[in-house]
Amino acid sequence: MLKPEENELVTRVGPGTPMGDLFRQYWLPFMYSWELAPDGDPQRVRLLGEDLVAFRDSQGRVGLLEEGCPHRLASLYFGRNEEQGLRCVYHGWKFDVAGQCLDMPTEPASSSFKERIRAVSYRTAEAGGVVWAYLGPHQADPPGLPQYEWTLVPDDQRLHSLKMVRDCNWLQSVEGDLDSAHLFVLHSRLKQDATGGGFFHPDLAPHLEVVETEAGVMYGSRRNEDGEHYYWRVTQFCLPCFNLIPAREDGTIPSQIWVPIDDGQTLNFFLMWNPERVPDPRYNGGPRADQRQGMPYQEPTSHAFGAWRPLAQRDNDFLQDRAKQRTESMTGIPGVPIQDSAVTVSMTGRPIVDRSREHLGSTDAAIIRVRRRLIAAARALREQGTIPPGVDDPSIFRRRTSSAFLRKDADWVALLDPWHRARAPFPEGLGTYVYHGGP
Amino acid sequence: MLKPEENELVTRVGPGTPMGDLFRQYWLPFMYSWELAPDGDPQRVRLLGEDLVAFRDSQGRVGLLEEGCPHRLASLYFGRNEEQGLRCVYHGWKFDVAGQCLDMPTEPASSSFKERIRAVSYRTAEAGGVVWAYLGPHQADPPGLPQYEWTLVPDDQRLHSLKMVRDCNWLQSVEGDLDSAHLFVLHSRLKQDATGGGFFHPDLAPHLEVVETEAGVMYGSRRNEDGEHYYWRVTQFCLPCFNLIPAREDGTIPSQIWVPIDDGQTLNFFLMWNPERVPDPRYNGGPRADQRQGMPYQEPTSHAFGAWRPLAQRDNDFLQDRAKQRTESMTGIPGVPIQDSAVTVSMTGRPIVDRSREHLGSTDAAIIRVRRRLIAAARALREQGTIPPGVDDPSIFRRRTSSAFLRKDADWVALLDPWHRARAPFPEGLGTYVYHGGP
Amino acid sequence: MLKPEENELVTRVGPGTPMGDLFRQYWLPFMYSWELAPDGDPQRVRLLGEDLVAFRDSQGRVGLLEEGCPHRLASLYFGRNEEQGLRCVYHGWKFDVAGQCLDMPTEPASSSFKERIRAVSYRTAEAGGVVWAYLGPHQADPPGLPQYEWTLVPDDQRLHSLKMVRDCNWLQSVEGDLDSAHLFVLHSRLKQDATGGGFFHPDLAPHLEVVETEAGVMYGSRRNEDGEHYYWRVTQFCLPCFNLIPAREDGTIPSQIWVPIDDGQTLNFFLMWNPERVPDPRYNGGPRADQRQGMPYQEPTSHAFGAWRPLAQRDNDFLQDRAKQRTESMTGIPGVPIQDSAVTVSMTGRPIVDRSREHLGSTDAAIIRVRRRLIAAARALREQGTIPPGVDDPSIFRRRTSSAFLRKDADWVALLDPWHRARAPFPEGLGTYVYHGGP
Repeated sequence: MLKPEENELVTRVGPGTPMGDLFRQYWLPFMYSWELAPDGDPQRVRLLGEDLVAFRDSQGRVGLLEEGCPHRLASLYFGRNEEQGLRCVYHGWKFDVAGQCLDMPTEPASSSFKERIRAVSYRTAEAGGVVWAYLGPHQADPPGLPQYEWTLVPDDQRLHSLKMVRDCNWLQSVEGDLDSAHLFVLHSRLKQDATGGGFFHPDLAPHLEVVETEAGVMYGSRRNEDGEHYYWRVTQFCLPCFNLIPAREDGTIPSQIWVPIDDGQTLNFFLMWNPERVPDPRYNGGPRADQRQGMPYQEPTSHAFGAWRPLAQRDNDFLQDRAKQRTESMTGIPGVPIQDSAVTVSMTGRPIVDRSREHLGSTDAAIIRVRRRLIAAARALREQGTIPPGVDDPSIFRRRTSSAFLRKDADWVALLDPWHRARAPFPEGLGTYVYHGGP
Repeated sequence: MLKPEENELVTRVGPGTPMGDLFRQYWLPFMYSWELAPDGDPQRVRLLGEDLVAFRDSQGRVGLLEEGCPHRLASLYFGRNEEQGLRCVYHGWKFDVAGQCLDMPTEPASSSFKERIRAVSYRTAEAGGVVWAYLGPHQADPPGLPQYEWTLVPDDQRLHSLKMVRDCNWLQSVEGDLDSAHLFVLHSRLKQDATGGGFFHPDLAPHLEVVETEAGVMYGSRRNEDGEHYYWRVTQFCLPCFNLIPAREDGTIPSQIWVPIDDGQTLNFFLMWNPERVPDPRYNGGPRADQRQGMPYQEPTSHAFGAWRPLAQRDNDFLQDRAKQRTESMTGIPGVPIQDSAVTVSMTGRPIVDRSREHLGSTDAAIIRVRRRLIAAARALREQGTIPPGVDDPSIFRRRTSSAFLRKDADWVALLDPWHRARAPFPEGLGTYVYHGGP
Repeated sequence: MLKPEENELVTRVGPGTPMGDLFRQYWLPFMYSWELAPDGDPQRVRLLGEDLVAFRDSQGRVGLLEEGCPHRLASLYFGRNEEQGLRCVYHGWKFDVAGQCLDMPTEPASSSFKERIRAVSYRTAEAGGVVWAYLGPHQADPPGLPQYEWTLVPDDQRLHSLKMVRDCNWLQSVEGDLDSAHLFVLHSRLKQDATGGGFFHPDLAPHLEVVETEAGVMYGSRRNEDGEHYYWRVTQFCLPCFNLIPAREDGTIPSQIWVPIDDGQTLNFFLMWNPERVPDPRYNGGPRADQRQGMPYQEPTSHAFGAWRPLAQRDNDFLQDRAKQRTESMTGIPGVPIQDSAVTVSMTGRPIVDRSREHLGSTDAAIIRVRRRLIAAARALREQGTIPPGVDDPSIFRRRTSSAFLRKDADWVALLDPWHRARAPFPEGLGTYVYHGGP
């Protein structure tokens, strides 16, 4: 539960807001690299409430400009991406990836006006198969990219599984990953011995242990497995919106990223990587190749990221099938991502849940800690100018997660620390990767 | 005509408003009983600006809970209705019809947390084939149901004809029934001797006599019928939004109920009953059995009452047929309910008409009186805590209406009083039920 | 660039705004005369933010009434247009074109109430094939119609080419015509020697000379044509929203009119006339006969002017074809009007561009002057009661434009003045009409 003013502070990311300023300290991914071809079609982008246009120039550099041409604010989206720059169709003004005006055919040849005109431009970078943007104040000298391990491994050890737009505030989605308890409820199948239809574990009431890290918050979710072992699922939250969720059997680690499009829409990337090998091929099969997991998507629209909206939305009840809800799965809603969307988007107060009315339980401990961490970081930046974690040392984001059976007397934090910090393989003899999942 | 501040006062019904408080003193119908099956699908409900979920439990009791689960506000609409309660799909918290949390699988078995958690829950009751809700402050000890005669007669003497959502403020629709003058204009056929196409009466300028009642306002609308008789049509308005409109030939009495969904949408029930016998079968024929009167309705949507929106809406000009308007009926709009929607929804100031700009005539006397009565009741409740009419004595709503030819020297109020108070059959020899209507 | 408060002042036209008051000094066209038949269907109109209904009575006079009936504000759009007036379907009140209530069937025959009731009614007039409205304060004694030459020539010398609704503020569209520079960029074909696909001129950087006129602002746009000649294109802006754009080869003069529907929608008329002869038949061919230029339009909607919305809109990227953009034309967007819509509607700050963020160049000189002229006129009216230009002398709008090759030493203003003021034919020997256009 938060006071209304805390809820405003922690959720709103537009220009000039405290949390918006915090986000503008960090690099944020916004497209797959393959979505932008050299001299190809410009693409509409919207990040932190700002309307932008992305393009890849003839040299392969990605430009990210404010949508409105600096001349008279016509949309650069309709522009021509040609010969090292994006040309506005209205008067032919042309801008390079840094926003510098290169050509201004409507002014006399003798004019130096173009040298003084710059489009608002943001730094971009590419790593891990995605394009990143830095919307912050240090455009001339931006911080280093966060060293998430998935950006560092060979390409075949990384798998981009899913991208989608969700119609709610980004923090609601972040919180979904901090909430281990819902895993074997929301996503569960109705019968333990059924195949398909969702996950299953008999212990629905995990005990959470929450630990602050340099990069954010880590928590272990402990369930009873058998007389001698606990089943631990360890999640890492990294500022400002990156979650690493519990590893799969082969040590493949999934990540959920929740980039604010604006206060009411979130861009989701779901990906996974294996630090040591090519992931189990079952994670890389057929439908995932299109980053839509075989789910139906809406016809593309002209909005930013308009090709990435699943068909299942609130106005069609997320395609809930009440008959399947009676016989197969907890929800009758197709697929884990859409099940998460249904509960997250539908929260009271759309598109920002009214956190002043919650009643949090013991399994919400990680959610509570992350909110406090975010609020503290935003306030410290605003009030003392404190640079938030990882901006000056991007190596702190090199973290991993785990799912493991450990002996009941094991100290999970200490034992798994080398693995979690990406400094050693998973410690032998202490457990094994497990994944009580469905397909 | 009202001052702008009076118009605000008399129309807005959200939590904390004076008129919202007045409505929260009364029971309001919101569904047909048949729409909720034991352990069947939960249904979205919206009343007085509050988003709710209705379900019928295994024992047949109807629960009406706030849509947001008290835990983290996910929608209970997606919930599972099973074994005496509604279970939220997110974390499995389960609530009974009184809102008490029965099960909280994500907390340790030893936890007593669930005992302290209640969903916001409103009292429900069933009578007359509909489910009623009481959203007021006395949930532990609610008032009695209003004793409308249609809730008391045997089921076969009552007919539910129509239900629909109308996209305007509730009071605009209430006022439609208080306005006898429009009957033989808006709903008229063009030629007296035609069959079909609407109603007809040569006297278009009724004289209105308005009388305050215990339950609200009664008015008689008097037209010249022949040299010796007046044609009286008597309507009862009962607080806060129940109209009994003039009786049909066989003494069957129709009622229009206008329940505020919020300030801009109204839920309409149209029903009729006969105090003494099964109504004339022509009122109960074919298409009416589905409570849609054979009219086309929109494909159901995910909004509250989303199955009950007629196809005819403002954005399709209420299906007005200009050719039929030239040859058959006053409007060319199909059906009395949609004709009423067209004039009511289209009023300047959508969805709340700007009553500061009206020019009321002599036939608006009942409208004026009802507004005054509503404003006075809302103010008395707010300022003196005066409990409004009928809350402590629901028997006062046992009223009837009439359509009758009476001798010109007859005192309609006195002569019809025993009938209007449901204490006697229609007085013989003084007149007869008439219905100058079309089909 | 304007300050935010200047931008508000110069764009907003609702009742009570300074620019709204300025517009209410002038007659504005809103329909083609052919759209209203005697005793035909009433039509929804919206002008300067006011919802209205237009109809043509039995005598052929056009009425323009406030949409809400003065009785209880039901829409007169559903009304019956019959026997010299428009009858509200709700209670049958009937109004003549001047707004006087002619019939009030719901009041006693003896009542004089109807004599005191007037619908809000605006003066209309017809000239040049269109219906004009005067929404100003002098309804009893309105000013004369502006004497645009196209309203004075024989009908066969005038061609109405296009009508459409554009979803942005009116001033953005006005400014498009004041911006000669975009002509051979936005509307250009990619290859000089291609046929079709747009216009072409090698000089993309015109020099603008701006002159104030009695009626508004005139500017000449000068391009290098050959060693001895300049190519001049002369445009006239007439207060408040009438542009005469450069003449075609045969002296046919096109006009763009941008009537504010409200602050976010504009009604566009495109027409042309020849002062002396029937225009070249290629301007009057096939598809233009429907005033839609053969373009696809949306299915008519129930909104004002709902039959006049092109299919190409922002939400379908104005039907931009990226392949054609690579091979044929600057934009890949079909047709000059839609190309203009794309850049105008898409400007930052929809539906009113944020002019505080512009960077204007030398080719924006006419735009700057017109804004200043409009702001000055609105302020003078508001602060000193100064009647704006042409209200008291509508003959000042009798102006023409030109496209001409002139010798480099020619004084375009002086030489063309008799022609521009419609007092003489185009001066022989000084140049010739040219049109560097496509089809």
